[in-house]
Amino acid sequence: MTSARTRIPKPAVLRLSLYLRDLDARGSTVQWISSRAIAEALGLTDAQVRKDLNTLGLSGQSGIGYRTDTLREALRAVLGTDRPWRTAVVGVGNIGRAVMSYERLQAKGFGLVAVFDRNPAIIGSEVAGCIVEDAKRIAVVCRAQAVDVALLAVPAAAAQDVADQLVLGGVRGILNFAPVRLSLPSQVAIVSVDLTVSLEQLAFRMSLLAEMKHDAAAGG
Amino acid sequence: MTSARTRIPKPAVLRLSLYLRDLDARGSTVQWISSRAIAEALGLTDAQVRKDLNTLGLSGQSGIGYRTDTLREALRAVLGTDRPWRTAVVGVGNIGRAVMSYERLQAKGFGLVAVFDRNPAIIGSEVAGCIVEDAKRIAVVCRAQAVDVALLAVPAAAAQDVADQLVLGGVRGILNFAPVRLSLPSQVAIVSVDLTVSLEQLAFRMSLLAEMKHDAAAGG
Repeated sequence: MTSARTRIPKPAVLRLSLYLRDLDARGSTVQWISSRAIAEALGLTDAQVRKDLNTLGLSGQSGIGYRTDTLREALRAVLGTDRPWRTAVVGVGNIGRAVMSYERLQAKGFGLVAVFDRNPAIIGSEVAGCIVEDAKRIAVVCRAQAVDVALLAVPAAAAQDVADQLVLGGVRGILNFAPVRLSLPSQVAIVSVDLTVSLEQLAFRMSLLAEMKHDAAAGG
Repeated sequence: MTSARTRIPKPAVLRLSLYLRDLDARGSTVQWISSRAIAEALGLTDAQVRKDLNTLGLSGQSGIGYRTDTLREALRAVLGTDRPWRTAVVGVGNIGRAVMSYERLQAKGFGLVAVFDRNPAIIGSEVAGCIVEDAKRIAVVCRAQAVDVALLAVPAAAAQDVADQLVLGGVRGILNFAPVRLSLPSQVAIVSVDLTVSLEQLAFRMSLLAEMKHDAAAGG
């Protein structure tokens, strides 16, 4: 997969996730799938699906499509979820707990090996099979535990400091739930999940749909 | 704002959210801001920021930039968070609770008016100031409460059924946390937050960075 990844544009990576989700939803009894079936389920064109899968070196068989197990394996390999990622969670609040209880975390290879918080009332207790460590010890514990990736669920004001400690600890990727843009070295991967941004995107689309309906009703 | 919204492409809407987040992070004492300052904070070009703000009918003053209060107001108006959205949460699991305890929900206009779950042990109890209603009553209660928007935090297998009930109840927008693509009428807005997709995007980027590092070390 070495060369394939560099050729894949960012929006295509997102689609690869959606293909895998669609395959998983169909269950393991489905052995063959056409680009058309995937395209229809996701609101894309056949051509787009075929092009994306072609980038992975996969070409469908005429009239049948793709073997689902081959496809699933290729998608997992290129996405990088065919290997374990040693994972830490920082912040045992509502979001941290929701993330730790997320059933697909382990299935996607994100095995929890460390949990951190700065609240003395929580430090030392067991959460999701880990003893909660003091957030002051992030760099040391991440090194000792060879943590690859951190799920960052702390308040916005603390996020950059914590991220710096994670980088010191050798972490190579951060999933950031704090509503703030983190400044990180270029060799550290970052993906953000910002609920405020999602809410605003939704408010925008609802407002847009409402004004389109209004315009249509006004005959304009 | 009627005409502005239809002219804004999807990636620009996302940037508008980031501009607002940046303004909020700078605090209310900052009265003027340049496109350059915003661009630098977000890793964009000045030209991109000016172009986006120009779409909203805003032009900066030479050498000073934009008044932050005017800018903030215009961003909130176009995003549609300058008005209240009557909000329901469906699913009182970890994700539902994390969403309800999210401090910016109310500030962004998403006032909670109804909470639903299908678990008899939870129905009738009070969560975030609302009595939890039986999920069977979604359509009726949403109509009665004039719910605009629903935050959908139920398991994937239940999501489409619940979404159908929400649409029957007159809901105009859904923020979907279930890892499944919902089929909805075109007049209902949808934004998805899928943790699996975010984890896969992160695994991809970590894998890509690792292989680039490996290639560089190999001198290739």
